[in-house]
Amino acid sequence: MVSEPIRRFSSQDDPWIETASRRIESLTMPRWALGRVCDLMVEVVRIQRSEAPSVEPVACVVLAGDHGVTAEGVSCFPSDVTGQMIGNFLAGGAAISVLTNLHGAPLYVVDMGCASAAVSNPPPNYLAVRLGPGTANFAKGPAMSLEMAERAMSEGRTLLDRFSIGPELRTLIPGEMGIGNTTSASALAALLLDRDPTELVGLGTGVDEQHHARKIHVVREAAERYAALRSDPIGALAAVGGFEIAGMVGMMLQAAERRTVVFLDGFIASVAALVADRIDNRVRETLIASHLSCEPGHRWVLEALGVTSILELGMRLGEAGGAMICWPILKAAVALYCGMATFDQANVSDKVE
Amino acid sequence: MVSEPIRRFSSQDDPWIETASRRIESLTMPRWALGRVCDLMVEVVRIQRSEAPSVEPVACVVLAGDHGVTAEGVSCFPSDVTGQMIGNFLAGGAAISVLTNLHGAPLYVVDMGCASAAVSNPPPNYLAVRLGPGTANFAKGPAMSLEMAERAMSEGRTLLDRFSIGPELRTLIPGEMGIGNTTSASALAALLLDRDPTELVGLGTGVDEQHHARKIHVVREAAERYAALRSDPIGALAAVGGFEIAGMVGMMLQAAERRTVVFLDGFIASVAALVADRIDNRVRETLIASHLSCEPGHRWVLEALGVTSILELGMRLGEAGGAMICWPILKAAVALYCGMATFDQANVSDKVE
Repeated sequence: MVSEPIRRFSSQDDPWIETASRRIESLTMPRWALGRVCDLMVEVVRIQRSEAPSVEPVACVVLAGDHGVTAEGVSCFPSDVTGQMIGNFLAGGAAISVLTNLHGAPLYVVDMGCASAAVSNPPPNYLAVRLGPGTANFAKGPAMSLEMAERAMSEGRTLLDRFSIGPELRTLIPGEMGIGNTTSASALAALLLDRDPTELVGLGTGVDEQHHARKIHVVREAAERYAALRSDPIGALAAVGGFEIAGMVGMMLQAAERRTVVFLDGFIASVAALVADRIDNRVRETLIASHLSCEPGHRWVLEALGVTSILELGMRLGEAGGAMICWPILKAAVALYCGMATFDQANVSDKVE
Repeated sequence: MVSEPIRRFSSQDDPWIETASRRIESLTMPRWALGRVCDLMVEVVRIQRSEAPSVEPVACVVLAGDHGVTAEGVSCFPSDVTGQMIGNFLAGGAAISVLTNLHGAPLYVVDMGCASAAVSNPPPNYLAVRLGPGTANFAKGPAMSLEMAERAMSEGRTLLDRFSIGPELRTLIPGEMGIGNTTSASALAALLLDRDPTELVGLGTGVDEQHHARKIHVVREAAERYAALRSDPIGALAAVGGFEIAGMVGMMLQAAERRTVVFLDGFIASVAALVADRIDNRVRETLIASHLSCEPGHRWVLEALGVTSILELGMRLGEAGGAMICWPILKAAVALYCGMATFDQANVSDKVE
């Protein structure tokens, strides 16, 4: 009865899948009657290698960075918005602020390098890493040096510790903010997946047809220029990536080492996971994809990672917003797995075979 | 940007759609960037006719009833399970118990007429209406008399009051339990939608091919026998319905009068909504469909009601389980609508047009 999302790992590879499935089939409901919610139960048991899975404590960490490629006219919002949104995240007015607040999940915000950033009186859930006022325009040269990409990843690896989030963390929800970053993520996907940009480039924050064509052109040129980096994830990250994307890569690498569940948001977070997985293929084992965004590249990135999203709600926000909307479903899956009575316990008659 | 679910009501019909859309477009995110979650915001504002929508207090009310048609071999679980599951609901071991508990939503359970039911020391969230030990086998004659159907609906109308749930209720989540009730609901859908049973009848709790064929046969015979009742929702309900379905019809009629949001679960709850809507066409105005179940008839029932579900997770549990899994998304939509800052409030630059 196990369905698509978890078929990528078979019970032969992983006995925890069999363990989880047996328990699910003993619970007082028709067999696999909660469909993909049952699949989620298996996923968490498999990742945590535990018959008592738990997805809390959870932390939502949003990384922001600006992109020099906006000079090419690939976005309909000015770069100032990235820094302004940091203020909005911290003040409680952004979607991710409302959602983390609603669900009692802590929100952490990191300025990895924004054009305009001035957080006066920085609160404890904010960090200014600020590797620069944004990346260089990758239409003219590499977005950053290889050293800078390595440094951004290292900073990413330290973020949880710097927020005093220890290894007891059960779920990491990485989010991002960066005007221009769908262009950067599309270029990364075009390189690492060797796919045509027309299959990958979407409308981002909502560009018109003319800007969309421009965006495809920019991505195509970059993918051709850096074709030699197709099998070099860190090289590709330096060439066309972003500070916030590189930081997410570092965070996800650390999460994979700890086998922390990483609950993926949309296209950009998934591209960061793809880069991380190309560096350390244990990354994919810890990923659960929350939703499929309307960025056309998202499905190809998830396919390459071997994960299937739970929901498809036509979202394209970023900020980890989509993941936080889906988060209660992951929480419910684990609560059901641990809390439901079995047919035996409840004295309920099982199916007549 | 308004997408499918709310197109059924145009802004010309209802100025609240325009009001909600204007507010959503002022919030600090790219236009309609939360997709169907934005649609949900519009839905709640439209139903509640309020710029300060709220979906709480919420109540989950699960009605149980048995079905004489199980004598035809249409289910793979014995009828005893209906009563046994009432015990499981109240003891906290069923999926709906775990979910309502997790989300802090009160759960109410009603025995509308089960074969075996003995709740010793009934708790305050339980009511025994018990119209009988189940309906008659509708393969041999009507499931119940017209008087009984009317009585079941009247009882349904009184349930909220009897649980001391007043008109301050903002969301009603009706659920059901009843071995055999996908057969009953399929027969109701076949009559009221005038559709072929092969398009409607699914596997219920998980019957095999042979039982599935039997189920289709039973539904087809009933649909032919009662063809005269196609435009008579109460007549059809008496002929092939169930006590728990009739009770849900009554509850939904009351909710429609009060303009309470009704958050629909799966196939059976949706068939009850269809019957209610044929009695009073204000019902559809208050419906929000949570998920599309794997019962094939569900999509046709939702289509006839003019509603589109939010999620599709391959669920087929009943008990309001699917609706409770989706409930936090409805809650999040309203929290975002009310709690997000506008571009002006947050001093965030809007899109450059």
